[in-house]
Amino acid sequence: MPARTLYRTAIQPDWIDYNQHLNDAYYIVAMSRACDAFMVAVGIDEAYRSSTQCTLYSLEAHAHWLREVKFGEMLEIGAHVIAVDSKRVHVGFEVRVAGKDGLAATGEFMLLHYRQGEQAGAATFPATIRSAIEQFNGPDAGEWAGPVSRALTLTKRA
Amino acid sequence: MPARTLYRTAIQPDWIDYNQHLNDAYYIVAMSRACDAFMVAVGIDEAYRSSTQCTLYSLEAHAHWLREVKFGEMLEIGAHVIAVDSKRVHVGFEVRVAGKDGLAATGEFMLLHYRQGEQAGAATFPATIRSAIEQFNGPDAGEWAGPVSRALTLTKRA
Repeated sequence: MPARTLYRTAIQPDWIDYNQHLNDAYYIVAMSRACDAFMVAVGIDEAYRSSTQCTLYSLEAHAHWLREVKFGEMLEIGAHVIAVDSKRVHVGFEVRVAGKDGLAATGEFMLLHYRQGEQAGAATFPATIRSAIEQFNGPDAGEWAGPVSRALTLTKRA
Repeated sequence: MPARTLYRTAIQPDWIDYNQHLNDAYYIVAMSRACDAFMVAVGIDEAYRSSTQCTLYSLEAHAHWLREVKFGEMLEIGAHVIAVDSKRVHVGFEVRVAGKDGLAATGEFMLLHYRQGEQAGAATFPATIRSAIEQFNGPDAGEWAGPVSRALTLTKRA
């Protein structure tokens, strides 16, 4: 079952590069915006951020580019919670082109719940947020299909 | 020894997000531009691309965000060739803030030499390009320091 779609965007003209397709980095820009939508969906919205000074910081990410995207196409991005602990959430993003089968890209992000300001540092999720994250996928979601993060290597894998 | 610096950029105002720092995705935009500079440095420049229809496509990447970057700071990005084979090159990018010690981010990219157009597909590097890639780091470069790509997990590592 595909990840839950929560962000759609047209391709901006300045996202197209000299290769005449969506520049690699702008798949990540779109995933980052989908991550903003994910935050809102689990309650880490503007009101929460401003009242608690807590937000999510990206620690690490792994992307796979799977298909070229052309100007005029529309991206649809879904998110899938892979794992969560007291302060971190591991989210998989699936990028699709509207009207086409298959994935255009995937990205896994490791995100830290972080308090900004004078008492800056990693912060425990409140129970309501943690619960919203745990319930984000829905009961029929199954495992995230990937492709998954890994050590990059040119050596043939076993 | 730090990776060879080949791209510098100021932070654009629209690269700053609601967290009042450089948005995660725009570190990747800056790395992608450094990758363009890397391509030029090894001979995959506009003239080469237009005469051969060959370019580099990003297959996969892994990023670590290590430090916040604020508006007004300047990024300096270095590249280090980790490995190369007949059609692919594995490059590590190091993002630093000018005038500050340490890394702000790193990214490993797996890049494929790809022919666009009617005979689209993976293409073998010409000997001159392959040689330029092999010599890119310089004799004193040593190993890339990372942090390195890996499977993301919330499980404690052994």
